[in-house]
Amino acid sequence: MLPDATETVSALGQICGARHVFSEAAELAPFLSEPRRRFHRSALAAVAPGSVAEVQAIAAWANEKGVALVPQGGNTGLVGGQVPFTGGEVIVSLRRLKTIRVLDADAGTLIAEAGVTLHDAQSAADAAGQLLPLSLASEGSAQIGGVLSTNAGGVQVLAYGTARALCLGVKAVLADGRLYRGLSTLRKDNTGYDLKDLLVGAEGTLGIITAAALRLFPRPEARETAIVNVASPAGALTLFRLMRDRAGATLTAFELMPRLGVEIQLRHGMIGRDPTPSPSPWHALIEVSRPQGGRQGVLLEALEVALGAGMVSDAVVAPSEAARREFWALREQMSECQSREGASIKHDVSVPLAAVPRLIEEGTAAAARAVPGIRPVPFGHMGDGNIHFNFSQPVGADGEAFMAGAEVVHDAVHAVVARLGGSISAEHGIGQLKTGLLR
Amino acid sequence: MLPDATETVSALGQICGARHVFSEAAELAPFLSEPRRRFHRSALAAVAPGSVAEVQAIAAWANEKGVALVPQGGNTGLVGGQVPFTGGEVIVSLRRLKTIRVLDADAGTLIAEAGVTLHDAQSAADAAGQLLPLSLASEGSAQIGGVLSTNAGGVQVLAYGTARALCLGVKAVLADGRLYRGLSTLRKDNTGYDLKDLLVGAEGTLGIITAAALRLFPRPEARETAIVNVASPAGALTLFRLMRDRAGATLTAFELMPRLGVEIQLRHGMIGRDPTPSPSPWHALIEVSRPQGGRQGVLLEALEVALGAGMVSDAVVAPSEAARREFWALREQMSECQSREGASIKHDVSVPLAAVPRLIEEGTAAAARAVPGIRPVPFGHMGDGNIHFNFSQPVGADGEAFMAGAEVVHDAVHAVVARLGGSISAEHGIGQLKTGLLR
Repeated sequence: MLPDATETVSALGQICGARHVFSEAAELAPFLSEPRRRFHRSALAAVAPGSVAEVQAIAAWANEKGVALVPQGGNTGLVGGQVPFTGGEVIVSLRRLKTIRVLDADAGTLIAEAGVTLHDAQSAADAAGQLLPLSLASEGSAQIGGVLSTNAGGVQVLAYGTARALCLGVKAVLADGRLYRGLSTLRKDNTGYDLKDLLVGAEGTLGIITAAALRLFPRPEARETAIVNVASPAGALTLFRLMRDRAGATLTAFELMPRLGVEIQLRHGMIGRDPTPSPSPWHALIEVSRPQGGRQGVLLEALEVALGAGMVSDAVVAPSEAARREFWALREQMSECQSREGASIKHDVSVPLAAVPRLIEEGTAAAARAVPGIRPVPFGHMGDGNIHFNFSQPVGADGEAFMAGAEVVHDAVHAVVARLGGSISAEHGIGQLKTGLLR
Repeated sequence: MLPDATETVSALGQICGARHVFSEAAELAPFLSEPRRRFHRSALAAVAPGSVAEVQAIAAWANEKGVALVPQGGNTGLVGGQVPFTGGEVIVSLRRLKTIRVLDADAGTLIAEAGVTLHDAQSAADAAGQLLPLSLASEGSAQIGGVLSTNAGGVQVLAYGTARALCLGVKAVLADGRLYRGLSTLRKDNTGYDLKDLLVGAEGTLGIITAAALRLFPRPEARETAIVNVASPAGALTLFRLMRDRAGATLTAFELMPRLGVEIQLRHGMIGRDPTPSPSPWHALIEVSRPQGGRQGVLLEALEVALGAGMVSDAVVAPSEAARREFWALREQMSECQSREGASIKHDVSVPLAAVPRLIEEGTAAAARAVPGIRPVPFGHMGDGNIHFNFSQPVGADGEAFMAGAEVVHDAVHAVVARLGGSISAEHGIGQLKTGLLR
């Protein structure tokens, strides 16, 4: 028989100390409320272990009793993987495992416990003159264990890869409490199966990551950042190819933004002024990271070639770090701004790079057939083939009625993605939201 | 009961056609003879299927009959993973699956069948203005399926990663003949477990890779290559840090070579002249790959800084492509040259980067205690922490007697590696040679 709440709280308290076990509604609330506000199950309890040994003891106890565990990091996941599915689970928060154990600037490696926030890990790297390139909107709260368990992506995947590519090794507690000791910092190790990469991206289903070794990179000397006007996604793709040829591995971001997203942000005062060079159906945010001693002006020169060839109609290079932050704020608010315009239906999809223009064209047409007047706001990591294919409700429409038709829009967009050989979860994962789609 | 040779040949002939089945000693010989000449088992037969369906049928038959299969690519592996272990196996050669199916220069992807040689894949990428950066001494024979199954490394891992990092997706036949369809070219896909990375590096034990999607990179505009004199491995490490800071991702090779390796090659006429700037206990081979439109002279400027700071005593930058090839020939002949000086004992090990000087110092001392007069020739991928820690026999010693003591030297070197948190197989894998060490 499964243990009840009282027995659970008592057992967890013996392992971690009673003050690290939470079962009252008010105490549990922050563990249960998630960013999308779509999942509303309770939990038997939440527990915050203070050591790997305590995580092991929790797992061993849960395995013996048949209690399901839900590992939770910063609780920023967008697909409900970090919150309960039935209500009978115990949430295991890694937030107390927050020590950065080793930062070796010479070797370019950092070993952090699972509960270190991405921001704190980035800051530690920066203080040592290094770059931890994993970067995403939720980095202030997201934790190392979570970003690895979900194989997070973000805005610098183009040059540096996803979380998986940045991870050299992990330590993880398996379902029965045994420890997987894979906290290696080796760049090359061909002894046995690649279990590290199986644990990364498993969303906690194969074990609880308790610490990780991450790769660091030399901190760029400077960044050159531009917003560039292009006529269409196909035009953006042509420009991307030019940039990739000229900047190679120093091209660290190539993001696509539709005009509607700029207008919404202006309308609701989310940006003080329009940072784009002039109105255009599409804008690309491009960033080149210059290595120490590298040549200045690579971005500007490439843009001059693109302007001369008619690929680009207008462009502006950020003249200061303040302007650069303004450019990035425009991009980072693309998702959030949609809530100011009513309800929205969202997709996190990827296709082979060459198919991005078709994805946007055909996905837009299919959604418009399903919901006349629907307003597409597709944006994101063009250079990775990863588009956040979002739609705002028609102007003046009823939000609830719009959302009632979400499945039809999902099916329409995902059918296009499938036809183009794409993925229905490029970077957010499966969680609870997409288990049906996984099949 | 296991099928005998006659039954096996008949069954395989029905699947693939009799002319693609080999069981006579003379026919089998090329499948059985491997580069290290250490493994001498025969096989029930060898078979060269001409399609994925035939590979599936072979696997289904073998699974039903209880026959072990040994997948074989270019037969260039250095640990015996591609040749039989008991003599009762069937070798499955992928050499007939040699079509490059897709080369998409814009997307930077190539899809090749398993039997395509690495050299042919590189050439196809080059003809399209792209770079397939996987590069190793055996690339003329090594095949895509094999280099992925062994997660091969080579001379450009520093900037581009091992074979695993270059692989976007695989198709593989599982043990019972079912097909794993993972031939994706997506840069980001978070739907389910990372089975691709489990198959890569599994040395054929989890399935037979029949095709793969690989990443291509923009072809560099030019390469700047130097041989640099350093006083010690510690000095090389200091220089590596400087180069990494200044060249970032454009630093594509940093190889260490001991003076003895140069002298052996001179003594036996393997090089026409000494390409090093002047004799020095250690030489580093450094290469910077300049992107299209990139700045010239990054390597030279960094070397001037290093000379000024006393990190480097002398240096020579290759004035021509011919000189560059000469530099690389010196490096690539480091292993082979040892056979001209009698017997040699070899190790393929890695340690955290900062520990490379201790690895060389302590490994050399330990080996010298075991075999007085032993001559260390440690060389290799310093920037990856991966050293081919090889030893030539003492001058005038008996080769057989020297090799009889190999285990003692192995144990001494591997003990140092273990103490430094390293790996006893950095890039060559486990195969048959290191199954005992894996434990």
